[in-house]
Amino acid sequence: MKKIVVLGSTGSIGCQTLDIVRAFPDQFEVMGLAAGNNQALLRDQIQEFQPKHICCINPPKSIPYSTSFTSMEDMVALKEVDLVMVATMGAVGLVPTLNALKHHKAVALSNKEPIVMAGHIIKAYERKYGGTILPVDSEPSAIWQCLRGENNNIRRLIITASGGPFRETDLEDLASVTPAEALNHPTWQMGKKITIDSATMMNKAFEVIEAHWLFDVAWDNIEVMIHPQSTVHSMVEFGDGSVKAQLGPPSMWLPIQYALFYPERRVNAAIPRLRTDRPYSLDFRPLDEGRYPCFGLALNAGKQGGTYPTVLSAADEVAVSAFLAGKIGFTDIYRVVERVLAQHESSSGENVSELLAADAWATQQAAAIVEG
Amino acid sequence: MKKIVVLGSTGSIGCQTLDIVRAFPDQFEVMGLAAGNNQALLRDQIQEFQPKHICCINPPKSIPYSTSFTSMEDMVALKEVDLVMVATMGAVGLVPTLNALKHHKAVALSNKEPIVMAGHIIKAYERKYGGTILPVDSEPSAIWQCLRGENNNIRRLIITASGGPFRETDLEDLASVTPAEALNHPTWQMGKKITIDSATMMNKAFEVIEAHWLFDVAWDNIEVMIHPQSTVHSMVEFGDGSVKAQLGPPSMWLPIQYALFYPERRVNAAIPRLRTDRPYSLDFRPLDEGRYPCFGLALNAGKQGGTYPTVLSAADEVAVSAFLAGKIGFTDIYRVVERVLAQHESSSGENVSELLAADAWATQQAAAIVEG
Repeated sequence: MKKIVVLGSTGSIGCQTLDIVRAFPDQFEVMGLAAGNNQALLRDQIQEFQPKHICCINPPKSIPYSTSFTSMEDMVALKEVDLVMVATMGAVGLVPTLNALKHHKAVALSNKEPIVMAGHIIKAYERKYGGTILPVDSEPSAIWQCLRGENNNIRRLIITASGGPFRETDLEDLASVTPAEALNHPTWQMGKKITIDSATMMNKAFEVIEAHWLFDVAWDNIEVMIHPQSTVHSMVEFGDGSVKAQLGPPSMWLPIQYALFYPERRVNAAIPRLRTDRPYSLDFRPLDEGRYPCFGLALNAGKQGGTYPTVLSAADEVAVSAFLAGKIGFTDIYRVVERVLAQHESSSGENVSELLAADAWATQQAAAIVEG
Repeated sequence: MKKIVVLGSTGSIGCQTLDIVRAFPDQFEVMGLAAGNNQALLRDQIQEFQPKHICCINPPKSIPYSTSFTSMEDMVALKEVDLVMVATMGAVGLVPTLNALKHHKAVALSNKEPIVMAGHIIKAYERKYGGTILPVDSEPSAIWQCLRGENNNIRRLIITASGGPFRETDLEDLASVTPAEALNHPTWQMGKKITIDSATMMNKAFEVIEAHWLFDVAWDNIEVMIHPQSTVHSMVEFGDGSVKAQLGPPSMWLPIQYALFYPERRVNAAIPRLRTDRPYSLDFRPLDEGRYPCFGLALNAGKQGGTYPTVLSAADEVAVSAFLAGKIGFTDIYRVVERVLAQHESSSGENVSELLAADAWATQQAAAIVEG
């Protein structure tokens, strides 16, 4: 039995993680659950999985058995925990991720902001303490799968992007698209924040930054291609020019299960299979950066390093919330993030407290711009 | 320095093998070359690579230095040889392949007839003597690459097929296509025999049989899809539903080099790279067995086992030669092979002499049908 903790258990990835646990009841014991504000769902999860440890902002009122309230930071460090699923949102996953690594845990990382903000620190913790990051996002999972047995002889990564719901929208119409339109992702069912980040392509820059840190690949050797069918999840070109791709129908169950069982692959009938009984086409084209200005903005912040990526991530979180709340337009997401980055003076970003301070500063700046 | 022997050095794969040797002059020493009738080219190769051992049907007249004539069977068994490239045609590669395995050599197998005829014996030799088969054909090489580090947890193989030059030809026009039309393969530059086998799709059934033996996958778990661009060379679906594909522009240099250096991947600027600077599409559709009757005929012979696959291979070799010589029509290839198979009474096929006898019988029968 693998003893696991799920941070962000009521979110999209948290729920799908528990689907995998349900599919293999003899393989996992849920030691802890951490959630935000969804009391009703958390209560159901507690009843079903009976974790010993709970962390939540607003605890459900009548918990059906005796349990202990534990901070995420302490929960991930518990001696008996083997694997931590970090499926939180935004910067909140950073400190638990680092503490889990410090305690030699396997960390299934779905929440990409921690690695965007602090990839250099996370990798240093891995090296220093011996914990391991297991990618959960579908693109880095694809790369990770392609790298199995390959001695990391990477020449190039090709990360695929669906292009989001506005792949074909006239550029002049983008200012007036609604949150409902932006949430209508053509291929993936995901949480709201990441769905908007997919529409702006901010998400794809985050994935480039993530891949840079996770797989130690130079910026110039990471490319993005628009692939509307979201069937090829990413590709790796090796030293000899051979390319490997990982593919399958869009479903997060596979990358979640892959991380939970790694290095084993287990049969799970719920995971959709590639169909070969009918014709299909896989289309690829270069990314049009003019259509997706957030991509270049975010990638540049990632390359600059220091506290810029933290500021990028925090400002984006505020801007996306404001867009979803109807306070700003879709194209204002770029403007808010761009302004906060322009106002920022980066420090080295070499320790976590700097990053958290930058996160707080950027959150405040972005909120002021949105409200002003 | 890897000491290698190239059987079939003047054929398409033999020449491309020597291209790889030329690209890495410090890595390989050519110990032996074996060729058929192309005296002029063999003479040039001898001059360039100065192998100690030569085998040929018609030796070139003035060999520029002292060398010894050795049979293929003895050449592959030489103590100093590390790797044998079997790039011969038809049944002729079988005995040298087995002898190389018997002497614990690495055998890069491009010639697929030996494994079609005698997959069971080749695998038994591998197990018994500890030699290793390294696939060179692009599809099994793709599968082999996808399997790196995967503990052979295979659910399904998806072998791709270009569909050949007659993918879109009206069925009633197939009887009258010319050898020149059949040799005009849309994506691959290959030898004549395999190009015709690609047009009839006999070749794809050979690859299914090859994959069945090489990767120990049940017949029902091997599928074929038409993929006109020949960019995805094959795919593997694993136990958890994840699919990996190996891709790249059609070029035999990559699979040849991969086998020669395995498990290393070396940079070679001559190997064409997947382009990401322009849009492209990869199309897939199920195989239409009505268009390609040779596929089902050949696959069935493979499944029946015994001496049927040997008869299949021998009859096909005669039929293809007859088609290329203008003696029979394109659709007669099916008829000749079908008749020889129907006349055959299989024996167990458990030893090589039975297979060689069946090969001789089928060659004679097919020739009689062609001439009659």
